[in-house]
Amino acid sequence: VASDDLTLADVGEFALIDVLAQVFVASARPSVEVGLGDDAAVLAAPSGRLVVAVDQMIEGRHFRRDWSSAHDVGRKAAARAMSDIAAMGAVPTALLVALAAPGSLPLAWARELAEGLATEASVVGASVVGGDTAESPTLVVSVTAFGDSGDRALVTRSGARPGDGVFLAGRLGRAAAGLTVLSRGHRQPKSVVAAHRTPEPPYAAGVAAAAASATSMIDLSDGLLADARHIATASGVVIDLDRSLLGGDDDVEAMARNFGLDVWEWVLVGGEDYGLLATFAPEAVVPAAFRPIGRVSELREGREGPVLVDGATHRGAGGHEHFMPPS
Amino acid sequence: VASDDLTLADVGEFALIDVLAQVFVASARPSVEVGLGDDAAVLAAPSGRLVVAVDQMIEGRHFRRDWSSAHDVGRKAAARAMSDIAAMGAVPTALLVALAAPGSLPLAWARELAEGLATEASVVGASVVGGDTAESPTLVVSVTAFGDSGDRALVTRSGARPGDGVFLAGRLGRAAAGLTVLSRGHRQPKSVVAAHRTPEPPYAAGVAAAAASATSMIDLSDGLLADARHIATASGVVIDLDRSLLGGDDDVEAMARNFGLDVWEWVLVGGEDYGLLATFAPEAVVPAAFRPIGRVSELREGREGPVLVDGATHRGAGGHEHFMPPS
Repeated sequence: VASDDLTLADVGEFALIDVLAQVFVASARPSVEVGLGDDAAVLAAPSGRLVVAVDQMIEGRHFRRDWSSAHDVGRKAAARAMSDIAAMGAVPTALLVALAAPGSLPLAWARELAEGLATEASVVGASVVGGDTAESPTLVVSVTAFGDSGDRALVTRSGARPGDGVFLAGRLGRAAAGLTVLSRGHRQPKSVVAAHRTPEPPYAAGVAAAAASATSMIDLSDGLLADARHIATASGVVIDLDRSLLGGDDDVEAMARNFGLDVWEWVLVGGEDYGLLATFAPEAVVPAAFRPIGRVSELREGREGPVLVDGATHRGAGGHEHFMPPS
Repeated sequence: VASDDLTLADVGEFALIDVLAQVFVASARPSVEVGLGDDAAVLAAPSGRLVVAVDQMIEGRHFRRDWSSAHDVGRKAAARAMSDIAAMGAVPTALLVALAAPGSLPLAWARELAEGLATEASVVGASVVGGDTAESPTLVVSVTAFGDSGDRALVTRSGARPGDGVFLAGRLGRAAAGLTVLSRGHRQPKSVVAAHRTPEPPYAAGVAAAAASATSMIDLSDGLLADARHIATASGVVIDLDRSLLGGDDDVEAMARNFGLDVWEWVLVGGEDYGLLATFAPEAVVPAAFRPIGRVSELREGREGPVLVDGATHRGAGGHEHFMPPS
């Protein structure tokens, strides 16, 4: 009945919920005991525990509707939340989606958002099992992701030890390059624009890292230096990054030259690449998805840190932080 | 270091997270394997499943900062999400909180919000185990609640059968009365204003209903008629409410008379009372928190329904629905 020209104000909340539920039910998985349409969903937790994380995408802050399609926003919202699950070494199994939206939002946009969420969830065999909708002047997509860790030990941020190697799965600086491209009115190169619109977290690498006894892990959302600092602080260590091991992305380097920008700001400070940063003990058999980028050393009084690049603190912007004016 | 005059823009995201974490860590419970400060939290799920629900509170839509304190908003945000868990017959155990807020928000407001969330969680022995913060023009508090159902069967919306009794735990119309009082510039009677600001879901009644084999259950958020319709539709039955069993709240009736309003709009249509509506088979021993308000009958071709009051469809507003202009 609902045509794609209709807005949420035309059709109302219950019709919106019907449209979203149609998309989500079509992609539902059997691990869900009670799914959409009740007060709450019921998730199976065969290992006796569940890994949970929530992440928000806010229009104007994390996405623009003229830069990303609804499908892109859905994929990215799911990817960001599931990336947190992967960073614990768990497999994402289910999502809850809270959508706060203005009445002027086209119903078709909401449907495509749902399709994007379901598509990204299906990459790892997960599904959307419930959610909430409400009217809001600002469009906010909030995703709670659930994950199962099986019998594996979970990988926190706090287990890095001096002598461990520092490893990376994924690429650096591409999402920041893509955002720069879009903010300057361009739409290509497509590879970096896609890195901003629809990051592809290396989900399987997270599980592999846990199976290989990674000592710590985090996903790269705030930027390499900021996220490395989270591990270093939680673990009480220093993380030494080796600049010669961080570069090598020719596309990104060429773009930075073209724009007259310092590629290291993208690589070290640019956020939202959604790779995985992990540490492994020297004797570990590190999964193939990871490459070495530095090492863990001892925190010592009077020494710089807790994150060093070629032995020194990086002098530049400090990474993205919400609420603060750009530094 | 941070004075209470500071805003989020003054202190930044990491300081905000520190302040929230201080509040939440102080109220943490041992059922959490990994709590605040990592990529994700890890919840114990000893029964092999977890009940999950998400709910949003949006400034200007669900609350106003001049009508409710930050502590009130926190309590209500937690109560709304945990009410959904109770409506399945489960015990809330943990919360994730996503806060989207403008940079101008006072840090003290955020701290009091966290205290309100922790306070309401502690009512049932739950705690806040993680969350997300982001900058947003609109203030949105989104809460994901987790619950444990032990060995009890979960109570969905779809199990009501003809012949069952319809029962209510909690009071009707008080939150709508409180909202009317506030919207007309008054601050009392305090009892109804409190019902709007800080609803008190009958959490234990939800568990008791499940233990007594309730055939269906829902929490009263959209209004009695709308929520009864959710059960009736999901169960394929008619719900007959008995008007003589619904009233009897003298405070609310006196207020409606003073305002020259129809008390039945508050009782039948007013939302956000956060009581529990449940159905029980005739032979059930209904928990003391519930009182009878009607019965379940068969859905028949050509008959009105699916919700009747004294045998007829209620002619009036249809209950609250997001995105639609008031009817």
